[in-house]
Amino acid sequence: MLDSHESGVSRGTLFAIGGAEAKLRRRTVLRAFLEAAGGVGARIAVVPSASSLGPEVVEVYQAVFTALGAASVVAARPESRVDARDPELAATLDDVTGVFMTGGNQLKLSSFIIGTPFADAIEAAYRRGAAVGGTSAGASIVAEHMIAFGSGGSTPKQRMSQLSVGLGLLRGVVIDQHFEQRNRYGRLLSLVAQSPSLLGIGVDEDTAAVVRDGNQLEVVGRGAVTIVDGSHLVSNAYTAKRTAPLLVSGATVHVLPAGSRFDLSRRLLVQHVEALPDAEVAEVRAAESDLRLLAKDIASEGVSPTHYARRLRRGRRG
Amino acid sequence: MLDSHESGVSRGTLFAIGGAEAKLRRRTVLRAFLEAAGGVGARIAVVPSASSLGPEVVEVYQAVFTALGAASVVAARPESRVDARDPELAATLDDVTGVFMTGGNQLKLSSFIIGTPFADAIEAAYRRGAAVGGTSAGASIVAEHMIAFGSGGSTPKQRMSQLSVGLGLLRGVVIDQHFEQRNRYGRLLSLVAQSPSLLGIGVDEDTAAVVRDGNQLEVVGRGAVTIVDGSHLVSNAYTAKRTAPLLVSGATVHVLPAGSRFDLSRRLLVQHVEALPDAEVAEVRAAESDLRLLAKDIASEGVSPTHYARRLRRGRRG
Repeated sequence: MLDSHESGVSRGTLFAIGGAEAKLRRRTVLRAFLEAAGGVGARIAVVPSASSLGPEVVEVYQAVFTALGAASVVAARPESRVDARDPELAATLDDVTGVFMTGGNQLKLSSFIIGTPFADAIEAAYRRGAAVGGTSAGASIVAEHMIAFGSGGSTPKQRMSQLSVGLGLLRGVVIDQHFEQRNRYGRLLSLVAQSPSLLGIGVDEDTAAVVRDGNQLEVVGRGAVTIVDGSHLVSNAYTAKRTAPLLVSGATVHVLPAGSRFDLSRRLLVQHVEALPDAEVAEVRAAESDLRLLAKDIASEGVSPTHYARRLRRGRRG
Repeated sequence: MLDSHESGVSRGTLFAIGGAEAKLRRRTVLRAFLEAAGGVGARIAVVPSASSLGPEVVEVYQAVFTALGAASVVAARPESRVDARDPELAATLDDVTGVFMTGGNQLKLSSFIIGTPFADAIEAAYRRGAAVGGTSAGASIVAEHMIAFGSGGSTPKQRMSQLSVGLGLLRGVVIDQHFEQRNRYGRLLSLVAQSPSLLGIGVDEDTAAVVRDGNQLEVVGRGAVTIVDGSHLVSNAYTAKRTAPLLVSGATVHVLPAGSRFDLSRRLLVQHVEALPDAEVAEVRAAESDLRLLAKDIASEGVSPTHYARRLRRGRRG
């Protein structure tokens, strides 16, 4: 297993996509995945073991990634632990620049591959710089502690969700998906209430939490990524009975739309993008253009800014 | 308007019920309302203006409150601002010990009554110690800033909810209802992102936020009350466009099940009830019974606890 806070380890980019990413037209999220996998010329392995669909699930991603410029898109589909121990199947991942795990049942995927040479090959791909992750089930499995399944609802309740073992490419977090669309605040809060050291990450559909250096999270796509920090949390999760609503007091919540950056170790927002009103954008651009002219004038005339400002006040405009 | 933090003002108990409170069997929430209105002998006015139903909505509450011991249950139903200015209708509230506003459309209720003698009569009832509040629409209207309407979803988005003017019996908060059942995290977060001074309160169905002294919130019922504190929040709500997901970083969230108490001014959990395992409950009861025997023995024999403890060690047991 990787220690995400270990320094100096070469690693790639993790993708946790919240499911239902656009596959026609905009394709912001899948394009970002392909770019992280090296852009044009990328070699992608699609791992569809979580899915209950047949080869068509691979064909969809083959079509999209090929259209976006991938050099090759191959399927690598262990359907049992025996398959996942097959060195030949694991070797499919040896020279890929991206590993994309599809949606479906993450417990099916994880119970087939975790602890096998196939999982080792995924980790090795990540260590040598590949883009690794996937959508829905393929997002949750990236973390060390994986949400296996659970029920929807805003209010956290005892026993509403189950943890199991994930790939461990990202430590100290638990990743849920379809977050907004399936109303999963409750189950994420309940997991953090039971394990306050974990950072809960909920990813909306057609949205990705992209993690670089095992730590720097950036949001891409149409929705938001919700982060629940339980560092200062008070809960009764250790005594609450059956399916009772849980006390969760003092959780810190961050809802991050596209462009936001979040430091997972420091648990802090490090950047957010502000949309400026159109009128203000025009004004800022005009001001920038004025500044460029000003700088040019100063450079060409060798005068000091003070001198130039004085001249401006006298009515001459550069 | 009342200042909820004004001291020395006699006031009653506010009830914000999240809708769909049990009306048969358990009736925990409505029983708590009746008790706050004085218990057996209570005189309740039901205000059904928010509802699109006819007299049957009143009949239901008449049946329940009467069954629980109310002395009288009358309807007071302004259906326009003209009605709400009628001194006779307002006088219906002169001697009640409880004002219960039903569910429906809170904007209908608020636009009929706010700023009229009828609203003044509700406030007067509260000031003289009555239980005042209601369910769903009747919960939201209690606050100074009232959520008028909005759309569901976990992720806060620009323009997903509207504020209007409420009764003002509770200041500095905004109250949403059907919180868990209608997935209203997003709209509560969006309101707090736009007005970080407000404490967002989301009440689940069959659950009540009961506020005493305009400040001490206690949770009653089957679900939970969720509180969003935006004191330390960073948001882009002032620039986000159209219906974009909002950045909301650093909101503090409290999910409070029945028995929890929360101080609205200090924004802190002040009490929570822990469910002990059955075995431990039995042990604690046995220990309590031992302690009672011990105390009795000490009282009857006039010996010091130290003496008694010494005697116990020698083998005699009281």
